[in-house]
Amino acid sequence: MTISHEQRMQKKKAVIDGKIDAAQQERGVLVINTGNGKGKSSAAFGVVARALGHGLKVGVVQFVKGRSDTGEEAFFRQQPNVAWHVGGEGFTWETQDKERDAKAAQAAWDVACQHLANPEISLVVLDEMTYAFKYGWLDLDAVIAKLLSRPAMQHVIVTGRAAPQALRDAADTVSDIGMEKHAFQAGVKAMPGLEW
Amino acid sequence: MTISHEQRMQKKKAVIDGKIDAAQQERGVLVINTGNGKGKSSAAFGVVARALGHGLKVGVVQFVKGRSDTGEEAFFRQQPNVAWHVGGEGFTWETQDKERDAKAAQAAWDVACQHLANPEISLVVLDEMTYAFKYGWLDLDAVIAKLLSRPAMQHVIVTGRAAPQALRDAADTVSDIGMEKHAFQAGVKAMPGLEW
Repeated sequence: MTISHEQRMQKKKAVIDGKIDAAQQERGVLVINTGNGKGKSSAAFGVVARALGHGLKVGVVQFVKGRSDTGEEAFFRQQPNVAWHVGGEGFTWETQDKERDAKAAQAAWDVACQHLANPEISLVVLDEMTYAFKYGWLDLDAVIAKLLSRPAMQHVIVTGRAAPQALRDAADTVSDIGMEKHAFQAGVKAMPGLEW
Repeated sequence: MTISHEQRMQKKKAVIDGKIDAAQQERGVLVINTGNGKGKSSAAFGVVARALGHGLKVGVVQFVKGRSDTGEEAFFRQQPNVAWHVGGEGFTWETQDKERDAKAAQAAWDVACQHLANPEISLVVLDEMTYAFKYGWLDLDAVIAKLLSRPAMQHVIVTGRAAPQALRDAADTVSDIGMEKHAFQAGVKAMPGLEW
């Protein structure tokens, strides 16, 4: 006997519905977007738009200043419910000054801590924060302790390559974005509106 | 002799600068966000915000209608430079009607084709389009031919699980988003402003 399309779909629906029914806890979620592929930061910015659509308030802290003319910054700075902070003085191999980079990361973290203490901020994005651990700018244990003591309903998204294991362990959701290929490899320039 | 932090950073900067100098082609890019992890659609929506920040026009076509009250839809429908179309009548195991699903996918593709013929639209997002191939709603070869004949400067982002190999081959950038873990598994409900 063959199973019809309808029967197969009914079975699938039952499985999915069961899983959805089982997940009923409502609370803030700690998300990490890591890996070498494209989309870690933009996935966080997409969630910013999503949160704004629900009338929520959002704090974004960028730990690495790549360029000062990004589309995301221009766009979200216009939104009344977004607080946007750019830390850092350029990427670390641009400044070649470890002390200055560490200081900028600490200043960005201070802004983050204000958001992480404010239950009116429903979503906090800590963009490219993982580099702060790689280069020793911030203390990982102290950061994790602060993240875990945030307001109960607040969501946090941390982005950046090579998220440390302890941070992954502390998180609820971890996406590892792999790069299968990138236009860069075919000689295409970073395009405005797509890459920045 | 040990290499100083500054020397190491200078070397790193030289390598990166060299790669950036080599990539000088300016053109539209075809991006695929696939894999089982979270962030495929939200990464596309983040790029929508980025494009809007550069004053560009965007067309979004959603091939699977999950729910009608998403934050992203509410938010981006308010933006004058965004055309937002939701195809589909719910997920396929909700409707359990293959004919109707195929028809809805075709209608969504018709809207997509209008965008893909319009050079004034700088970014086209084809959200969750890969399911249309999985369920046989759309012809893969015809879709790829249309994607490759789009305006030269137009970017396209296709999202969804299990992107077919021929589509990956046609793309410039492919990100494969792996799920390391998900809050769902710990019993957390899909939260508004984060998941939808």
